[in-house]
Parts: sequence; C-alpha cells; structure tokens
Amino acid sequence: MTRDTRYVLTLGCPDTTGIVARISTFLADVGGWIVEAAYHSDPDTGWFFTRQAVRADSVSIPLDELRARFAEVAADIGPETEWRLTSSADPKDIVVLVSKEGHCLHDLVGRVATGELDARIAAVIGNHPELGDFVSRLGIPFHYVPFPGAGEDKSQAFAEVARLTNALDPDAVVLARFMQVLPPELCEEWAGRAINIHHSFLPSFIGARPYHQAFARGVKLIGATCHYVTADLDAGPIIEQDVTRVDHSDEATDMVLRGRDIEKVVLARGLRWHLENRVLVHGRKTVVFS
Amino acid sequence: MTRDTRYVLTLGCPDTTGIVARISTFLADVGGWIVEAAYHSDPDTGWFFTRQAVRADSVSIPLDELRARFAEVAADIGPETEWRLTSSADPKDIVVLVSKEGHCLHDLVGRVATGELDARIAAVIGNHPELGDFVSRLGIPFHYVPFPGAGEDKSQAFAEVARLTNALDPDAVVLARFMQVLPPELCEEWAGRAINIHHSFLPSFIGARPYHQAFARGVKLIGATCHYVTADLDAGPIIEQDVTRVDHSDEATDMVLRGRDIEKVVLARGLRWHLENRVLVHGRKTVVFS
Amino acid sequence: MTRDTRYVLTLGCPDTTGIVARISTFLADVGGWIVEAAYHSDPDTGWFFTRQAVRADSVSIPLDELRARFAEVAADIGPETEWRLTSSADPKDIVVLVSKEGHCLHDLVGRVATGELDARIAAVIGNHPELGDFVSRLGIPFHYVPFPGAGEDKSQAFAEVARLTNALDPDAVVLARFMQVLPPELCEEWAGRAINIHHSFLPSFIGARPYHQAFARGVKLIGATCHYVTADLDAGPIIEQDVTRVDHSDEATDMVLRGRDIEKVVLARGLRWHLENRVLVHGRKTVVFS
Amino acid sequence: MTRDTRYVLTLGCPDTTGIVARISTFLADVGGWIVEAAYHSDPDTGWFFTRQAVRADSVSIPLDELRARFAEVAADIGPETEWRLTSSADPKDIVVLVSKEGHCLHDLVGRVATGELDARIAAVIGNHPELGDFVSRLGIPFHYVPFPGAGEDKSQAFAEVARLTNALDPDAVVLARFMQVLPPELCEEWAGRAINIHHSFLPSFIGARPYHQAFARGVKLIGATCHYVTADLDAGPIIEQDVTRVDHSDEATDMVLRGRDIEKVVLARGLRWHLENRVLVHGRKTVVFS
Repeated sequence: MTRDTRYVLTLGCPDTTGIVARISTFLADVGGWIVEAAYHSDPDTGWFFTRQAVRADSVSIPLDELRARFAEVAADIGPETEWRLTSSADPKDIVVLVSKEGHCLHDLVGRVATGELDARIAAVIGNHPELGDFVSRLGIPFHYVPFPGAGEDKSQAFAEVARLTNALDPDAVVLARFMQVLPPELCEEWAGRAINIHHSFLPSFIGARPYHQAFARGVKLIGATCHYVTADLDAGPIIEQDVTRVDHSDEATDMVLRGRDIEKVVLARGLRWHLENRVLVHGRKTVVFS
Repeated sequence: MTRDTRYVLTLGCPDTTGIVARISTFLADVGGWIVEAAYHSDPDTGWFFTRQAVRADSVSIPLDELRARFAEVAADIGPETEWRLTSSADPKDIVVLVSKEGHCLHDLVGRVATGELDARIAAVIGNHPELGDFVSRLGIPFHYVPFPGAGEDKSQAFAEVARLTNALDPDAVVLARFMQVLPPELCEEWAGRAINIHHSFLPSFIGARPYHQAFARGVKLIGATCHYVTADLDAGPIIEQDVTRVDHSDEATDMVLRGRDIEKVVLARGLRWHLENRVLVHGRKTVVFS
Repeated sequence: MTRDTRYVLTLGCPDTTGIVARISTFLADVGGWIVEAAYHSDPDTGWFFTRQAVRADSVSIPLDELRARFAEVAADIGPETEWRLTSSADPKDIVVLVSKEGHCLHDLVGRVATGELDARIAAVIGNHPELGDFVSRLGIPFHYVPFPGAGEDKSQAFAEVARLTNALDPDAVVLARFMQVLPPELCEEWAGRAINIHHSFLPSFIGARPYHQAFARGVKLIGATCHYVTADLDAGPIIEQDVTRVDHSDEATDMVLRGRDIEKVVLARGLRWHLENRVLVHGRKTVVFS
Repeated sequence: MTRDTRYVLTLGCPDTTGIVARISTFLADVGGWIVEAAYHSDPDTGWFFTRQAVRADSVSIPLDELRARFAEVAADIGPETEWRLTSSADPKDIVVLVSKEGHCLHDLVGRVATGELDARIAAVIGNHPELGDFVSRLGIPFHYVPFPGAGEDKSQAFAEVARLTNALDPDAVVLARFMQVLPPELCEEWAGRAINIHHSFLPSFIGARPYHQAFARGVKLIGATCHYVTADLDAGPIIEQDVTRVDHSDEATDMVLRGRDIEKVVLARGLRWHLENRVLVHGRKTVVFS
C-alpha cells in the first residue's frame, strides 16, 4: 500500500472570488502535480475550505521553502486564513486510551499491522490492567493507570495519563472505549487531536449505556459516532457515523455485540481521515474530504 | 403479485412452555399448511409473540369456525392472551392525511397502482389544497380541511378530519407528512391504526424541522422513522427506521431532498407490515415479523 | 427547492500541471463565484476531469460570451479537451420508454411533480398500452407503439420510437424497465443520452429475468444498476448502483418487489446526476461528481 | 457475553402438515423452554427447515437421551429427515488457513479474544511465513507449509495442510484469504465445514484479482462473499454477503483497502452463524436463521 510521498495542503478562510485561482496558480508555479483536490464553499458560515494533495517529487522546492512561500499567499488571501502544509512521509504516532473492552484496540492493532493505518501505536494506556497482556506481547508499551471510582477525585489519575501521553507528543489521542470523561483542561490541551468513539448514533443516547437506552426505546438501527472530544459531553464535532440494523429479537447484550462492528469501522475511518489531514473543524462541525 | 389466500394468526401472551405445541397442534388438526411462521420470546417482558400464516385452501373449516375454535385454545393458553385471525383476502382501506409536500403521497399512490401495496386509498385529506388536483385526476376522493394557524383552536378542524376518516373505517390512517399534531383523543381512538412518518432518526431531532436540526448538529447520516401515533409526540412504538448518508456539502435543503427517499421507503415498509398484520405492539415497542 | 441559476462547466483532458490554475484564473477574471468544484485525476488513464458550478449572477458577461472565451482556454489546454458549459436555468426534457411495469414511471412522475427532478416529462412511449391511462390522466402525452414478439423484425417499431423521441430532442431517453434491447444504431444515435435501469447488480445477472437468476444462485443481496446504453448488452458505463438485503425466505417474486425500491432510487439518482451534468463518461467508465 | 447453555435442534425434511406440531409437542413434553425458534418452508424445493433453541436447564432429561428420543420423532417425520441436536456448551475449534494478507486473521483473533466468537483457534496454517510471528506471540500454533508455484503439483503441500488440520478435527476450516484453490478431494472431505471469504460480490468477479476486475468494470459498489467451499470455484452455497460504496476516485488499491472491512465482517458473521448451527445447506443454497 506504499504510495509516493504527497504534500497535503489544507486551508479554511472566509469565502470570496479567486481563492482557488491563487492557490492553484501558486502550486502550478512550483511545478505541483495535483493528485487530489477538494473544495467546499459553506453558504451557512460563509467559509471556504480546501484540501489539495500534490506529488512531492513534482515540486521544485523543499517543503520548508514551500511552506514559507505559501505563508505569503495565505496572508494575501486574508488574515483569518487557517492552513497547514504537511508531508505524507511524516510518521504519525497515536496513543490509545482503553478500559476493559478490547474490540477497538484489537482492530486498531490489526490495521496498523497490515499497513492500512499508516501510523505507529506509541503506547496504550488503560485504567484497567486487562488488556496489558495482549498489548505487551506485541511489543507495544502498556501503562496501567488505576482510576478512583465514580464521584471521587480523578485529577491525579488524569495527570498521570496526560504526563504519559504528552511525553510522546502524539498526532492523535484515541479514546477507544475509555469510559472516562476527560476533564475540561485536557479537552482544551488536546483540542483537535483527541478522538472519541461513542457507541450510539449521536445526538441520540448521550452518556452512559447507550445500547441499553436504544433497547429501551425500541429503535430499529443502532450506531456509533467518532468525534473530536470537547468539554461538552458527546457534543464535539462529528467526524464519522454509521449504523447497523437490529430487531425485536436483539436484547441489549446483542446490540452491544452488533454495535462493535460499527464502532470499529467508524473509529478506523475517522482516525485515518484525521491522520491524513482530511478533517477540517469549523465551529461545532467538520468538513471531511474523504 | 397475486398470492393464494392466507389466514394469518397473530398472538401475544405471557411466555410459558408448550404454547407453540398447542398452536401448531391446533393448526395441524384442521389441516393447516403453515407457509410462514415466526416466534419471539422476549426475556425482558416475559412475553411470547407469534405470527403464523396458513394456506386458506388447506384448512378444512370456514374462517368463522376457525376463529371460534381458536378462541378456546387462546383462552386455554391464558386470560391475558391477545390474538387476531385474519384473511389476506380481506380488502384493506387506508386514509392518507397530507399537507403540502406530496412525495410520500405520490409514492403510496404508485405502490397501490402497481399492486405492491395490496390496499385501496379510500380518501386523501389535506389541510392544504395543493395536492387535490393530482389526487382527483386519479379518481381518489380528496377532502380539503383548512386548519387554523399555530396557537389557535384546531378542534373543529380535527373533528372534521375524524368525521371524514371514521366514515370510511380504515385499516390505517397514514400521516404522510401531515405536519399537524393529533389531539390526544384522536391518538386514543386510532391507537394502533394511526401511522406517522417522522423525518428524522428518532429519538434524535424530535419535533419541528428535524433536517435543520440535523444540519446544525453536523451529523453524517439522516434518517426517517415510521411509528404508531401516541399522545406523546414522536415517541410512539417504532415500526421501521432507515438512514442515508450526507456530508458537509449538504445544506439543510439538500437533506430535505435526500431524506425524502428514506421517508418514502420507511413509510411504505411500515405500512405494508401493518396491513399484513406483521406488527405486534407491546408497551412502547413493536415486534415486527417482516 | 429553487436555487439561484448556476453556470456549470464540465471538462476532461489529458492530465498535466496547471489546468486547475488556468480554469480557476479564467473564472476569477470574469468574477465567477464558485459554489461547487470537483476534480478527478485518473492515474489509470492519465486523464483529468473537473466540474465547476458558478453563480450566474456573479459572472460579468453573458453565457454566450463566457462560452466563446472559455473555448480559447480549452484550446490552450490541449486539442483533446472535451468540455461543456451549461446553465441550470435551461429546461430539461426527458422521454420515458416503458413496458407494463409502472413503478419506475410512477416514481419519476412523483419526482417531477414535487420539483425534486428539475425536468419535464415530454412524452411516455410504451410498447404496451397498460400505463397509458395513468400517464394521460396527468396530462402527459402517451404513445403506444406495439412491438412484434421475440425473434421477429422490430425495426419498424424502433423507427417509430425513434421518430417520436427525436421530434422532442430530449436531454435524456430513459428506459424505465422498457424490456426491449435497443438496436445498435439507436445506441449510437443516443450515445450519452440513453439511460437504462437494469434490475441487477451488474455485472451479475446480465440479460433476462435477473431476479430469478439471483434467486437460483442464492445471493444475500439484490441490486440495480443505472447505466448508459451501449450496443453491448448491459455493459455500458455504470452511473449508479445500489443493493438491498434478501434472505432465504424471499422467493423470486419477493425479490421482484424488494428490488423495485432499489431500481427507483438508483434510476432517480442516475438521471438527476445526468441532467445536472454531473456524469462524465470516459471509455467504459464514468466519473460522477455527485 | 456468557449465556445459559442451550440445546440447538436443526432439521430439514420434505414439507408436509404437522411437522411443527410434532417437534414442539416433543419439546414441550420434555419441559423444553424454547428461547429461539425459526422456520422456513421453501416452495421452490418443497422442503421445510427449522432451528429451535431451548434452555438446557429446562429439559428434564440428559442430552444423549434427548437425542435418542428425538431420533424416533425424526424417523416418524420421514426417511429423508436430516437433523442435528447440539449443545451451545460444546467447545468449538477452528483452523485458519492464510497466505500473506493478515486482515481477516487479525479480525478473527480479536473476536475470539473479546469473546465475541465463542471458539478456539486451534491452529493457523500459512503457505507463507509472514503471519507466523504475530500468531506465535499470542500463543497460537502456527504451521508454515510452503506451496509450489502455479502450474506445479501441489498435492504434497495440500496433504500436509490436510494432515495438520484433520489432526485437530475442527468445527470449521476457515480460508481467510488463503489464495489457494482446494483440490476436489479436500472440498469433499471438508464439505459443510470449509468456509471461504471471497473478495467480491459473487457471482460477479469469480477467480483472481476481483478488485482489479471491479475497477476495470467501473462498478459503484464492491463486496465480499462468505461461502462453503465446493469443487466448483467460488460457486459454493453463499452464507453471507455485503458491499461498500466506491467511486471514480478509488483506484484498485483503494478498493483493496475498502474491501477489507467488508471481508472481515462478512467472514465473521458467516463463521459465527456456522458455529452456532444457524446455517442449513440445501443444494446450492443456504437457509440462514440469523
């Protein structure tokens, strides 16, 4: 699945005429062979978003210089312009936070091992020790950070999670069924990098035991939602969602089982798009150039 | 799409050993050739549900006598037993309540015309006149019942809708994007017969303008829900749901358009299952033997 | 569902650096406010494809002049460049060819009536008279063209279909379950305009009675395919496909029924994309900017 | 996910009146509390199929005696009756045959580890050594059996695979992207136990490199098929299928990646249903009581 190295430009700014012309003229001037290009003009917010991927070997100048030159274009487009210019060759590190349930972790490990997810699992941190054996056997560092029970002060435990995580400076902190609500300061610190998988089709069934809520309501589909973590519980910008069918013969425990397949693919898609700089956040929503 | 006539038995009762044996022995004794059989044992409520379809021409006694004899079996099973025994040859009448948006109505008309929905549209009642021309051209009675604005007393208008509907004694009253909340007494009177299509994946986005709510939240799928109408807004037992994918490029008006295809199929499936006695309501939930 | 008028540019050409820059600079120079833009660079064929929609009221010159000026840009890009520049305000006419089964026709009529499909059904031509009554009641011209049986010479019947169709110069000729194989010369004459809905997930089950073939094979999903008609039976460029689940309890006649919902949405999507110039054909395949 | 032990009866026979009555009366007589029951009457072949699950603790006699007594009922129903009576408490062993691609193997390992698949991976056999390290780290026996190239005699290699597999007498032999065509005698020996995942929506794209075939044809959905292996390549009875959407921007290598998620869930579902005795094979088709 190796591909040629690509430089990826993402940009968001207030919409106006001529932005595409400026960007594409700039890229053409440095020889950039565009292999992927996506645009979105949002009439609701008046913002414009784009993601462009060019073959690195087609660009006549080094990445640093490309960045420096593009900074001028971006400034020219306007002061509110937000942009990034990255290389697909940059290695990506992720830290995975888990509890007892291992299905999402197993899935991520498999995707990394098969090369589908072009990333390295730098560490796994569990608030329970159960998944440590599997993780350690594969040579991945596992840290067990015990958490106090509901209602007690968890700040020390979270501080330890933050210390371990920040030491690795990961590109993504993945809450793979972590079952602990991040404190606001960590949400803030990891804004745009902390990704959660919630086991319901949000905004339905926010909070605890969503499959049991779904069972009680008698819905005919259950779902999962991958979203950026914000201080507002289960209300962060949604990256991806999907659903699967259930019927009257499915008890809550059956829904738990069926839901896992959805959680795994939704998290995997969302995380891959995040790592490939395909997700642009604007306010409470995302633009996903998948 | 003509099929041989079938007798359809549906039954619900507290679960215990031997119910299937009793029912199947009874059916075998009258020569009943079972062509469809479905069972559900609900551990949550402790109830048992079944639906059995037998070829009418295999049964040695008339339907009336079959009913009379089965009443004894049902009584023997227990005093809480609820059951129905119907013939697929009985004609089915539906009354459709509409407002201005015609996509669900067009869809139902097409399904009746092509024989997919084995029913007759006895009348269409609109709180706006717009759809009258199309309906009338096809020879279907259309009644325009003007409704007062929000906040005003609608009891007279609803009384007229009820009078027109009840005169036809329909097997289903279909709220095909009717956009008016039925008063509690009509919900009660039409309990188990009034079917609504709500344009969201309930319980998300209850109430007005669900597509605009979905757009504001940035969800990646939108849906529709077909449910029995109860006095509790959009909270009746769900018969069927489905979803379709949207992305950041879909504005609220695009979601309205995309959602229509889901509304149409979800309503059509739910209505057909209702008319074929495939839906058993128990509490807030349904058992659907589709 | 009214939108502001848009000018839509579609273009395909051998890929090279700077095409986007040239096009976007051109559009910016005439004041064009791009509201939709999509690009595709095909590494397999080495071709580049784009579709751009600009707000008509943002363009400082009339459409004719815009076309004339863009012709120079296109010529400059290269001699193989294929392009179109159309206005969303241009009315779209379709002619629908049918046989006895009316579900796709009903669906199209509903979509036109509700404004979802921004087109006019200029005529319906049937090789059977059955659907004439419904069509005529709605004020749409219906032409009954009887066809000889299998093995007999159908050239006269096809000539009559062609005469009636060509007199209307439609933007699309829709074979809505027409059940007759177009002769090669009509495929040629209507190339890129004749759209068929085939009731299987092609390339599975080419030819007659695909649902019966699907039943015999025991597949767990059935599908439908919307494609441009070519002289090679059911092998034209695919515009859209979708599937629905079936199981062992579905007989071939059940599959026929379930499949209809898929046929309808697949045809409707494919036809809408065609009419909105979202489909670019290249060789045996399509690029669909949906 | 522990459940109470269940006895599972599966049965197929020529259809006639009174079969359900006989079976259910038998089960009621021994106190059997039915927790799941499914029936299928196949008008095409004239066969009847059923699967019944009863709570083991409700049955007043041991499983051996239950089997002995039911043998009489089965004989009474008719000489062609095929049936099995198993306990959900019986451990299930699987042997997994792999090549180089590990995504299905990783997925199965994860499902066993999380208890979702109630089975033991008794061994993994690879015709390449690549996946050995991962498998061995987890403490699962891995056997590397080198295979000669295309056109050469593979009988010795297959004999070694058969020897290793048969020594474990597994409930399922899973070809998890094994990429080798089983010889007819092994198909025969493992009939009803050898399960393959084919990376296309069969019957489309039989044989080698189906994703490349799909890309060449320009399909808009790709799929995967889980089926029993027979001597007829990719033509065995289908257990499960599913699809996922692709578009013009997906190259063949993208399809390979996207397809993996479908392969994994389709294989996992098919294998679980097989191990839970939910799949009844009849001729070229399956009845799946999922």
